[in-house]
Amino acid sequence: MQNKINKVAILGGTHGNELTGVYLEKWWIKEAQETKRKSFSTKVLLSNPEAVKRCSRYIDQDLNRCFTLDDLQNKKLQNYENKRARELNELLGPKDSKKPNFDFLIDLHSTTSNMGVTVIITDDDSISFFVAAQLQKKNPKRKIVQMIENKIAQPYITSIVPHAITLEVGPVPQAALYAELLLETKKVVLDVLDIIENFNTEKVVDMSCKLEVYDYIKSLDYPKDIDGEISAMVHPEIQGADYKEIRKGDPLFIAFSGETIYYEQEEPMCPIFVNEAAYYEKGIAMMLTRKVRVTKQIQ
Amino acid sequence: MQNKINKVAILGGTHGNELTGVYLEKWWIKEAQETKRKSFSTKVLLSNPEAVKRCSRYIDQDLNRCFTLDDLQNKKLQNYENKRARELNELLGPKDSKKPNFDFLIDLHSTTSNMGVTVIITDDDSISFFVAAQLQKKNPKRKIVQMIENKIAQPYITSIVPHAITLEVGPVPQAALYAELLLETKKVVLDVLDIIENFNTEKVVDMSCKLEVYDYIKSLDYPKDIDGEISAMVHPEIQGADYKEIRKGDPLFIAFSGETIYYEQEEPMCPIFVNEAAYYEKGIAMMLTRKVRVTKQIQ
Repeated sequence: MQNKINKVAILGGTHGNELTGVYLEKWWIKEAQETKRKSFSTKVLLSNPEAVKRCSRYIDQDLNRCFTLDDLQNKKLQNYENKRARELNELLGPKDSKKPNFDFLIDLHSTTSNMGVTVIITDDDSISFFVAAQLQKKNPKRKIVQMIENKIAQPYITSIVPHAITLEVGPVPQAALYAELLLETKKVVLDVLDIIENFNTEKVVDMSCKLEVYDYIKSLDYPKDIDGEISAMVHPEIQGADYKEIRKGDPLFIAFSGETIYYEQEEPMCPIFVNEAAYYEKGIAMMLTRKVRVTKQIQ
Repeated sequence: MQNKINKVAILGGTHGNELTGVYLEKWWIKEAQETKRKSFSTKVLLSNPEAVKRCSRYIDQDLNRCFTLDDLQNKKLQNYENKRARELNELLGPKDSKKPNFDFLIDLHSTTSNMGVTVIITDDDSISFFVAAQLQKKNPKRKIVQMIENKIAQPYITSIVPHAITLEVGPVPQAALYAELLLETKKVVLDVLDIIENFNTEKVVDMSCKLEVYDYIKSLDYPKDIDGEISAMVHPEIQGADYKEIRKGDPLFIAFSGETIYYEQEEPMCPIFVNEAAYYEKGIAMMLTRKVRVTKQIQ
């Protein structure tokens, strides 16, 4: 089979304070047997070891925004994450290569938003979609989000290999572990390895897949005051209500003054990353998605 | 009345990533009228402005561990928090002075633990207990924790003035705001100001107070492996179960291997700060308290 997956990398600690992935990596480094499969090799590693040591999201800048092809090729960029991105690109990619070192990448993240287990796909790649569909088939509670962007210009670590998924699990605070979420994340990753094993050994019968997908449309910022400070909080009615459709007139924010601010667009949307702590510095309160059904065929 | 409270300080951002207090301070700096009372003056300030800017707990060390009398007098200690502690001590204290600049201090914190609204008292001071008791009378859901230590040797910011309470509100992730908790915290602080106003103007009839208090006994560490790494997580059964009594044989931790670790002491205890994110660096999984009833009389 031409598309055989030979090398898989499982990454955690791309953000150093997202401990679910960090501790799973540490576990699997010790318990390597658990991630071994016959038809491919698996590498387990911490993407941002310095940020992991400090239990901070990053040292100088968000590592998961350092992987555009331009930035990877720009030797003038010399901060810690720029350099680490080039190292990872050499090790796992390189990006835009016809013979990358790794075929499939699983990048483990956690979120303070109530996103349960979410599979994010950033490239219109049928094998990535196939894995996501199989994960959802095993457990329909698992959500799939697509944020398709031009791969060359994508800043995400997943863009340096041909096939990839990003896992977001939550809600869990930064710098903390929730046992149930960690054990569920472990299960999802081991499911991915089994799915790839089946795919490689052609045990999969139906190579077409139908998925329910949340298609990323845009981010929604916090209201700000004249000093540029956030002036309102996520409204209690949508706190924790990720994936639940919001309609015109639904409450979105509550100002520190007590005033409610409503959703005013005509088109209903499904919010995700609602009140994600890491997005305050960007001013982002949530992201809006449209629920769609897609069909993919393995080429 | 000899005990009149003339100057009250409301502090937020003692830990820079505990946004509930940070945003309340910012709000009250703009809306000063809300914290004004007739019988005393109120000052609102951010304890650790640099940590607030970076949205991190601290820059060099935990500011709320810098206020022992020895450390405040030790000019060799020159990191950011050491210096800031001396500034705050000059402004609000000084510690162990007979004529401190402020009489009462409210220090606003948040926690990832499910502690609701908790009032912490660290000094066996009857006015502090009186305020806590009145807060509980207004809303019995508000919990009171006592962690009484020798005041001179105490490292907490509250130890530099004669009377003080620390507020802990949760669960809320670090670096995020939950609207309901922020609005509830606002209400608690305004209640404190009203209680002090009543106290000053002698409208209070009964100066004795009976309280239900959780008395701090000791902290409980995470299990560790031979490399000194945390080897188990808080068990799902006590995740979020702060203040709920645990008994011998109750599950405490679940190891990454899946094994459950049980509480083995004979005496039942009530855990608090269960899975507090900020305590991972200290290796603390929770604190154990004993529920007691105390009676205090204003002297």
